[in-house]
Amino acid sequence: MIVILKPKTPEARIEHLIGWLKSQGVGTHVSNGDIHTVIGLIGDTSRIDLDLLESLDIVEAAKRVSDSYKICNRKFHPEDTVIRVGDAAIGGGSFALIAGPCSVETEEQIVGVAKAVKAAGATMLRGGAFKPRTSPDSFQGLGAEGIRLLSLAKKETGLPIVTELMDISELPLFDDVDVIQIGARNMQNFELLKEMGKLHKPVLLKRGMANTLKELLMSAEYICAEGNEQVILCERGIRTFETATRNTLDLSCIPALHDMSHLPVVIDPSHATGVAAMVKPMACAATAAGTDGLMIEVHNDPAHALCDGPQSLTPEQFADVAAKCLKIREVMAE
Amino acid sequence: MIVILKPKTPEARIEHLIGWLKSQGVGTHVSNGDIHTVIGLIGDTSRIDLDLLESLDIVEAAKRVSDSYKICNRKFHPEDTVIRVGDAAIGGGSFALIAGPCSVETEEQIVGVAKAVKAAGATMLRGGAFKPRTSPDSFQGLGAEGIRLLSLAKKETGLPIVTELMDISELPLFDDVDVIQIGARNMQNFELLKEMGKLHKPVLLKRGMANTLKELLMSAEYICAEGNEQVILCERGIRTFETATRNTLDLSCIPALHDMSHLPVVIDPSHATGVAAMVKPMACAATAAGTDGLMIEVHNDPAHALCDGPQSLTPEQFADVAAKCLKIREVMAE
Amino acid sequence: MIVILKPKTPEARIEHLIGWLKSQGVGTHVSNGDIHTVIGLIGDTSRIDLDLLESLDIVEAAKRVSDSYKICNRKFHPEDTVIRVGDAAIGGGSFALIAGPCSVETEEQIVGVAKAVKAAGATMLRGGAFKPRTSPDSFQGLGAEGIRLLSLAKKETGLPIVTELMDISELPLFDDVDVIQIGARNMQNFELLKEMGKLHKPVLLKRGMANTLKELLMSAEYICAEGNEQVILCERGIRTFETATRNTLDLSCIPALHDMSHLPVVIDPSHATGVAAMVKPMACAATAAGTDGLMIEVHNDPAHALCDGPQSLTPEQFADVAAKCLKIREVMAE
Amino acid sequence: MIVILKPKTPEARIEHLIGWLKSQGVGTHVSNGDIHTVIGLIGDTSRIDLDLLESLDIVEAAKRVSDSYKICNRKFHPEDTVIRVGDAAIGGGSFALIAGPCSVETEEQIVGVAKAVKAAGATMLRGGAFKPRTSPDSFQGLGAEGIRLLSLAKKETGLPIVTELMDISELPLFDDVDVIQIGARNMQNFELLKEMGKLHKPVLLKRGMANTLKELLMSAEYICAEGNEQVILCERGIRTFETATRNTLDLSCIPALHDMSHLPVVIDPSHATGVAAMVKPMACAATAAGTDGLMIEVHNDPAHALCDGPQSLTPEQFADVAAKCLKIREVMAE
Repeated sequence: MIVILKPKTPEARIEHLIGWLKSQGVGTHVSNGDIHTVIGLIGDTSRIDLDLLESLDIVEAAKRVSDSYKICNRKFHPEDTVIRVGDAAIGGGSFALIAGPCSVETEEQIVGVAKAVKAAGATMLRGGAFKPRTSPDSFQGLGAEGIRLLSLAKKETGLPIVTELMDISELPLFDDVDVIQIGARNMQNFELLKEMGKLHKPVLLKRGMANTLKELLMSAEYICAEGNEQVILCERGIRTFETATRNTLDLSCIPALHDMSHLPVVIDPSHATGVAAMVKPMACAATAAGTDGLMIEVHNDPAHALCDGPQSLTPEQFADVAAKCLKIREVMAE
Repeated sequence: MIVILKPKTPEARIEHLIGWLKSQGVGTHVSNGDIHTVIGLIGDTSRIDLDLLESLDIVEAAKRVSDSYKICNRKFHPEDTVIRVGDAAIGGGSFALIAGPCSVETEEQIVGVAKAVKAAGATMLRGGAFKPRTSPDSFQGLGAEGIRLLSLAKKETGLPIVTELMDISELPLFDDVDVIQIGARNMQNFELLKEMGKLHKPVLLKRGMANTLKELLMSAEYICAEGNEQVILCERGIRTFETATRNTLDLSCIPALHDMSHLPVVIDPSHATGVAAMVKPMACAATAAGTDGLMIEVHNDPAHALCDGPQSLTPEQFADVAAKCLKIREVMAE
Repeated sequence: MIVILKPKTPEARIEHLIGWLKSQGVGTHVSNGDIHTVIGLIGDTSRIDLDLLESLDIVEAAKRVSDSYKICNRKFHPEDTVIRVGDAAIGGGSFALIAGPCSVETEEQIVGVAKAVKAAGATMLRGGAFKPRTSPDSFQGLGAEGIRLLSLAKKETGLPIVTELMDISELPLFDDVDVIQIGARNMQNFELLKEMGKLHKPVLLKRGMANTLKELLMSAEYICAEGNEQVILCERGIRTFETATRNTLDLSCIPALHDMSHLPVVIDPSHATGVAAMVKPMACAATAAGTDGLMIEVHNDPAHALCDGPQSLTPEQFADVAAKCLKIREVMAE
Repeated sequence: MIVILKPKTPEARIEHLIGWLKSQGVGTHVSNGDIHTVIGLIGDTSRIDLDLLESLDIVEAAKRVSDSYKICNRKFHPEDTVIRVGDAAIGGGSFALIAGPCSVETEEQIVGVAKAVKAAGATMLRGGAFKPRTSPDSFQGLGAEGIRLLSLAKKETGLPIVTELMDISELPLFDDVDVIQIGARNMQNFELLKEMGKLHKPVLLKRGMANTLKELLMSAEYICAEGNEQVILCERGIRTFETATRNTLDLSCIPALHDMSHLPVVIDPSHATGVAAMVKPMACAATAAGTDGLMIEVHNDPAHALCDGPQSLTPEQFADVAAKCLKIREVMAE
């Protein structure tokens, strides 16, 4: 960590700061410039709060040289992490196609969609049972019954299942769930993250709508630090001023996260764009950019099931997207 | 709700949509324009999902005419809500000055600050015991011991206490807490909000860093809908592209929220700016704009307690801010 | 346009508003709901200011049903616009590869790069002569001399040239320039746009860092309205809270703009990401998403020319990107 | 400037970088840490491009220690700049109240408003003659005739006039204009800024909707660097995700800009909020936060002149705001 002091900072204030830094267990290296004095911090600076240092009246700026996430950091773990889920795998060259409806509705629906997406190449089944909704008046999902129906679909097709957990109290219902999804609104629910760290199953962690990639990795670090290093990072669109799409899908996160971390990255084009017609171009784009997986909404009757329909593909459309993406992977691998 | 269809939408698709809308229990009123057909929805449209409607391929745009929050809505409850906490009150002309340290550290510290801020005019005491931190390596607060020390300070001074709850499992420790704070990162932790709705004590709900005022009110609605209408709304800065301040304090939220809702509004200039030197101008500005209360970090030894220092005021500085704000209230009330 | 009035708006105010609307030459259609009265506007509403209507105290909300751009609008011009530039073309299935250095430096450099990118498949040459720089102390480009060197490179290779014009006073120097670029910071320099509308050559219009796609199209409309309909839209990254990349490249703009307008779309991954290592994944992603062209920085000696280097590719790297993109286009076209 | 290299950067690459830095005329100071090597740059680093350095593959991060604006910088010019305009002054304790209609419409209107706002305490008259409009179909102002009418109002009342210039070709019409306004969309129209730098009259420079305070100061630096140091900085709202107000008024810019620069700051609450009802609270808030001036829209018949009305105050309302602001200034000065 580098701390740049303001011009003409009194010597006594500098010594006081250095004393405090030493009391926190870090070494210091002072360098006097023409205008500014710069203090280099040596040793474990992870407990030093950057924001607080920066807001001291004698500090012009501070910059962390080492990253504040370690277990997730590519620097200390150069090989890609590969996460295996039943017969599927993600990361390190393995590509995951996660598909299914926004909400689980009926046995017929979820089993039907599961069979259809498996036939089209999906490697995992998604479906919402507990649904986070902005308004308390909106439909909140089937809950426990939804999980039961997902299990039936898993038994029928062999597809591992991915579904969202909103509160730790729901965990006992998730025994049969293969990958637990933590939603964007809970990305910084740190108590929930710690609980996820105690599990022995993969966690798919969605980026918050206004969270930086560094914050996403620090939230992943919360899970890893408790012992569970099976974390899948998921981008689902960020909040910007643009209103033509529901959110702005940040595809440059793919090379950026691959540079910063060894964890696999999944892109969710359905929630990001909110429009079925944009799912195919953005899924293909994400694949060309090197994503390790896609998470796509598929419904067996989008026209009828109005509320799921708009951003969902039909199984036929999904099969087309899956085929294109596999061909793009071949082109990129040549 | 108004649904505007795309030009040349086939009659059959329109009828299908109208049929579905009716099956959802809402009436419709169709109006054919030169280019567009517009469907007006009549009745309880709260369960109709705007985003989903908008993303249908035949829909150009949809707009909610009635708001999706009802209990918090000024339209249906024109009088200001006044929330009483011990001898203090907030809303409807009552002004709350909530002050105290970022983190509770020791008995001496918290009792000392409590006495000092009470003498300077504070009506409530704040102090963090459970601290949400972006990095798992950062100090996470004293926890239960912090709550115990806050209770001691309350006993000594009579000041009601405000402190953050991060997870429902911590609730048994909060018996002596007067106002429960829900932090910005938990603003859309809907399960936690529902639990807050079952309590009989005020909740101070902080706006998420990238949440709109409508979303803040819908989160407040989650609490109110369970029966607890004692919700205090708190602005603490939003995330923008600007980097000169830690966050951008959105003071126009004060007249906006007062127009949209009858709930009281509190401004936290300490977290928003992250710099002690900006707390006074922004606290005075918030008061001039009509805030119902301020939440300000005060530490009895900011220079020594380095990590609390930067955005904290000394008790003397706080007394100066409090005095200015009370005079500004007089000017505005004339 | 739809205007939704607030509940209990007095009849006299409604009549006054309707009278005013009629005086502006638009017809009205009033519909009374349970809570709200809605006024539908009929006829040419392009001169009615939406923001101003929305901020009237009796207006709850207003929504434009017809778009405020007409010449650029796909609705009124369903076929793709194809723009021809020398032997190159863009739009309607024709793909443009625009490559070259950030700044023109020397004859040797620009002619060398031009030959190299032509061999690698580029269809146009880019290079900055007039450079917009945030700080007045930064290098501002070679100016007229830079244009002269670009002309030499054009003569040597036959590649049409694309370069930025910052001020109308520079126009006399641009006779030999094939496509005039208007930079992001000038996207709403309306006087400059009007002047571009009087020309008979293509204009490449870059999206401002904080401008919506609608605003981009309204700026294109400024050019078209003066008679020049040869406008190429260019996305080069938008400003968000994320700091891991210089800007956030918004690739969903490709399907969105293709839906809204018939004008061709070009993506500039070099400026958006600011890092050479991200140019290939993002160029391939843009191609998979259906872009009509790419604009890529290439330098013949990025290691030596330090200041151009970081976001520039070598000619060899560019050849690799170009080859991949052409293969992806084949996959997408199958 | 501090350049932090990536771990394990080969010695040869470091030497090459240092060689290049020296060739640019800056000295270097190398410090080897446990993990990272840090290069300190000494001397005039203003021509070194931070973004470009940061994107080199061997560079982890770079940070400018000295600011890239010098003439505007408070560090090198500690006293407040005071700008005198006729009998009015702004900065260094002098407060400016700039008021008038959005657009100049008729002689009767502008003279009427000028007299009314003068009586209410305004020190300058504003009024738009050349209007930047997002859509080419919108009303673009009276142009030269508008300037003529403003001059008449100036002659009648003695109030200095402030009006926007959009293009340098309009300058010959501005002889009688006292303060030239450069609008938000032209904040980075660098050629226009340079021309403003050659004038001998004050320039009111509006912050772009997505520009940082540093960028605003670098644009001011463009004007100052040409010799005109009479620059007034103006905040008029920034673009964020929030939609409850037209823009988000960033009042913390007041203490921030006063800390960074000696130039006076003006707040425009009318354009930022877009609603008359929010002008008073935000004007009072800005005053409490220490603004050097306010720019407020006033119309003598907002109800009739529908298109100017919504965000305009009546002269009576303006008189009330002006009186409150002056009292708040007294409170803050005590």
